[in-house]
Order: sequence, then C-alpha cells, then structure tokens
Amino acid sequence: MEKKEIYVGVDLGGTTIKMGLISKIGELIFETEIPTRTKDGYQAIIDDIVQNVRKIASDFGLTWEQVKGMGMGIPGLLDIDAGIVRMAPNLKWKDLSIKQILENELLIPVKIENDANVAAIGEAWVGAGKGFKHVIMATIGTGIGGGIIVDGKILHGKNGMAAELGHIPISDKGIVCGCGNVGCLETVSSATGIIRMAKEVVAKEKDSILTERYKGKLDEITAKSVLDAAKEKDKEAMAIVKEAAYLLGKALATVANLFDPEIIIIGGGVSKAGNILFEPIREAFYQHGLKNIVKNVQIVPATLGNTAGIIGAAALFHV
Amino acid sequence: MEKKEIYVGVDLGGTTIKMGLISKIGELIFETEIPTRTKDGYQAIIDDIVQNVRKIASDFGLTWEQVKGMGMGIPGLLDIDAGIVRMAPNLKWKDLSIKQILENELLIPVKIENDANVAAIGEAWVGAGKGFKHVIMATIGTGIGGGIIVDGKILHGKNGMAAELGHIPISDKGIVCGCGNVGCLETVSSATGIIRMAKEVVAKEKDSILTERYKGKLDEITAKSVLDAAKEKDKEAMAIVKEAAYLLGKALATVANLFDPEIIIIGGGVSKAGNILFEPIREAFYQHGLKNIVKNVQIVPATLGNTAGIIGAAALFHV
Repeated sequence: MEKKEIYVGVDLGGTTIKMGLISKIGELIFETEIPTRTKDGYQAIIDDIVQNVRKIASDFGLTWEQVKGMGMGIPGLLDIDAGIVRMAPNLKWKDLSIKQILENELLIPVKIENDANVAAIGEAWVGAGKGFKHVIMATIGTGIGGGIIVDGKILHGKNGMAAELGHIPISDKGIVCGCGNVGCLETVSSATGIIRMAKEVVAKEKDSILTERYKGKLDEITAKSVLDAAKEKDKEAMAIVKEAAYLLGKALATVANLFDPEIIIIGGGVSKAGNILFEPIREAFYQHGLKNIVKNVQIVPATLGNTAGIIGAAALFHV
Repeated sequence: MEKKEIYVGVDLGGTTIKMGLISKIGELIFETEIPTRTKDGYQAIIDDIVQNVRKIASDFGLTWEQVKGMGMGIPGLLDIDAGIVRMAPNLKWKDLSIKQILENELLIPVKIENDANVAAIGEAWVGAGKGFKHVIMATIGTGIGGGIIVDGKILHGKNGMAAELGHIPISDKGIVCGCGNVGCLETVSSATGIIRMAKEVVAKEKDSILTERYKGKLDEITAKSVLDAAKEKDKEAMAIVKEAAYLLGKALATVANLFDPEIIIIGGGVSKAGNILFEPIREAFYQHGLKNIVKNVQIVPATLGNTAGIIGAAALFHV
C-alpha cells in the first residue's frame, strides 16, 4: 500500500502555537495546540515546535519519510524567499533565520508566510474560496487583517506588507487609529471598534441590553456580547453591528474596484454572526462598488475557522 | 549586418489612433497619428491601421520580416487571452475578434491590452517606472484611470477590470460621480473635478484670476487654465489644485496600503504641473499611508507622455 504524503502546518501566534498534519489534498488529519513560550526566547519556541511536530507525526504512526514539508504562518514582517523573520514584535523576534534553523533540525523543507496570508491561502485552497483564483480575505479581530490572492498567488508587494485592509479611511467619526490616522476601517469594523461603540452606549446609559448587562463592567464587553445583544433585537447593539458591517462593506467595494476579485471571504470570530453582519456588508458593497465589477462578486464567511492558518501553512507546498 | 527587430505599438483611442515603431529595448523609432473613423464602422478602422502600419514600416525602410509583432491598447472591456474586444463604447465595438482579424491581415502576432494598462506597462518598461516591479500608475484625465503592476505583471483581476482608482470614496463634498456614487476620487481630482471647482469660483464671482478670465465663458475653462492661474499665485486656483492633489495623495495612500508598491507614477496632461501638484499629493500620501509601507514609495510624474500607450503596446511582447 502506498504511504500517504503528509505536510505539517504551523500557525505561530503570540500566545499559542497551533499545529496540524495535512494531506496533500488539504485534509486536516490531526491538530493540536501548545502555548507560545515567548518569554523563554526563540530557542524555546523552536524546541517546542520541533519536539511536538516529531511527536504528533510519530503518535499518528507516520514515518518521518512521509512528512514532506512544514509550512508556518508567522505574525510579523518576513523575508519569505530567504526564510527570515525580520521583525515579529509579538514573538520578540528580530532577524531570525527560522527556515534554516528548522530545516537543520527537522531535515524537511520549511516554508514561511505572513499569518494573515496563510489564512487566506488556506481558505482559497480548501475553504470558502476553493476553486477561485481571485480572492480577498478580510479577518476581523483586534484589528482587520487582509490576505489577497491574485491569479492564484498571494499578493506580497515589494516588502511583504501588502493587503493592509484595516487602514482604509472610511469613517467620519474622528476616531484615532493605532496607525496615527483618523477614521481607519479598523477603528469601526474590528472587534475593538465594536467594543468601543458598545462602551459608549453603556457610558451614556442608553436604553439597551448592553447598559443593563455591562454598567460598571465596561471591561467585560466583548464583540460577542454586542453581537448577542443585536441578535436579541437590541436597537443600540443592532446599530453598532450595522455601522461596523456597513463601513466594512463600503471599504471592500474599494478593494474590489482595485482587484476585480471573484469572492470576498470574511473571517475571524465576528464572522460567525450570520446575516446580522452579512446583510449590511453586502448592502454597502453592492451599492458602493462599480456595478460591472461587484455584480459577480460573492461575499461569504470563512469556513475553516481556527484551522485556516495551519491548513494554509501546509498549502504553501501546493499553491 | 544584423537587421533590427521592430515591434509596432498602436494606441487606439476614440478620436485618434497613435502608432509607432519600437525597438526591442523600447526605443521609439517612429510615431504617427491618424483620426479614428468611428462612424465608418470597425472595418474602416482596421483598414486604416493595417494600411498605415504597412506604410510606416515601408517608409522607414523595414522589411516585413523585421516586424515581429503588433501590440494594441484599446479603451474597453477585453478578453485579452482570446484577443476579443467585448465592449468598447467609444469605438462602438462589441464582441470583435480583433486579434484574429489583424493577424489574418498582417501575418504577424498581435496582442491587445486595456488602454490604461498599456500606459502603465510603457512607463514601467522604459519610462518613470523603469527597473521597478511593483508599480501603480494613475492617469489624470476626464476621469482617473489606473494601471497596476504586481511583481512585473499587469493586474487584470477576474474580468480585466482591476485598477479602477477613480472610484475610491474620498471627498465629503457630496458630488455625484458618473458611477452613481458620491464623493469618488474622480469627482475632485480629475480634470473634470478641477474644472467643476473652477466653475464654482467663477459662478460665485470670487476674487480670482479665474473670475476675471472666464466670467460668462465658463465652458472655456480647462484644467490647464486652473493650473496656470495657480502658478500665477491665484489663491482660489491654488486652493483648487491643492484640494485635487491632496485627495489624490490620500487615495493613493490606500492603494499603497493594499499593494505595497515601489513607485507611483502620475500621468495625464495635469501631471506636467510640477510641484504645485506633487507637493500636496506627497504630503497627503506620506501622512495617510502606513509608515512602513509608504516611507520607501516614490511618487513621480510620468515621463513618456503621449507615447506611453504605443510604447506600452509594443512592450506586450517583452514584459
């Protein structure tokens, strides 16, 4: 019997390292997660990855010859061809030749890619974007991350910093963004933006479920609290979700006008909210984009969830 | 002595057809221009192109064997691989297999490309963008056209409609754009936008060279009139140019955040205005873009002028 070729996907985050075994057609065979020992220096993290990758392969009954390569998504500024992490503030890494180090330890080919990009690559490979070659992915989290696939290839730009969707100027509310500018998309449409608007509702003691639940407990508000209240038809919560979603849709219209994509995928925890989120996104998108471009573009939720990163990391060997 | 390989570049516009002979390293050896006989149907235009291309090659002393191919920039929606013009309203063409027709007549390979894209390709080949692989070109005319080069290749998107720079929502003045939306970049920063703002100055009889010169003659105002008045330090004209330029720079910051380019080229007649235009463009660009991305991006005027299209059309055989 022919033995399966398996690839390892690693999604290296500032708090956890997700790892998985993935077949060459994108089936996730096994996944696990360990904490990121950021404080113990880069060698601790590398040791953890090496040991755990060997262990899961062995636990799963694979010979090392069956493991054909390891892809890794890393949050930071990378020199992808050279396999070097130039700067990864969350990991406290700087100018680390991670590809070389891991290849020396594991004796298999290693590829690296930006973390927002691996999620997009994963979704385009076997997730919501399967079969499409022109894909925009927006991930709603603390900020708004982006990954853009042009003609089947992830867009890097000159310095690997392309697809910064979160800083499209879109709101006239005057909120200052972390980047120093005013009115960036992620001041409104990120989880952070949603929480900020909910805190305003509670602080002003507006008539709302949010005020009932979070008065005096502002720090307990999450984006999910707001989405839940909106699903309970709370008017203030619904207005917040609508504003966040509508401006996201409007910003995505600009992105579509520039890229002429086939599909736009919305990822991140917030993307599970369903129609309450997607209706205003679509309304704004089809209203503000050039008709000939947007009329054929679908806007859909991501389907791989937390596994997009590890699957996309493995996909670096296939797409 | 080895005979030179020559390529023909054609820039097919709604009113004129520009043609040139271009060496394989991008030297423009000869150029000419004939009117576009739009009213006489597509065959008249094709006959004109075929006859004139043969004539200029012969006048220039070339044998037909030296002419290795013909590239053509066309204003419209194209199926580039198939060589079909799907829709070109300015030419009144629809579903025309132009590549096939011209190859049958000329017996040399023919390639077609969108007109905004050939200008960008020309500038990237031997103009302001020479040596760069990540190039944004914005052409300021009646509207604002775009051509975007990613890793040395022109960006088409799914349907060949990418790089629509003119419809980034950027102004809060409430002007309705031809696309139906409000506040699009080209409502302010195109020649049309500049003229519109100048007409307002004259209509309100503001204290301005524009009012002196164009009162009762609003239809004679051109973008050049406004730029000239601004160079004469007319405050109203300077304010118009500054607004148009500043918002263009702000919109280009969004484009840069998405593409992480090396260079941005500004083309079109207005781009010859010099610092009066480029200073506010740069000010807004570096202020609104993400610092790590924009800090290394140059913004420069196009250098090929009217010949960018024919040179870029010939470049389709080389880049």
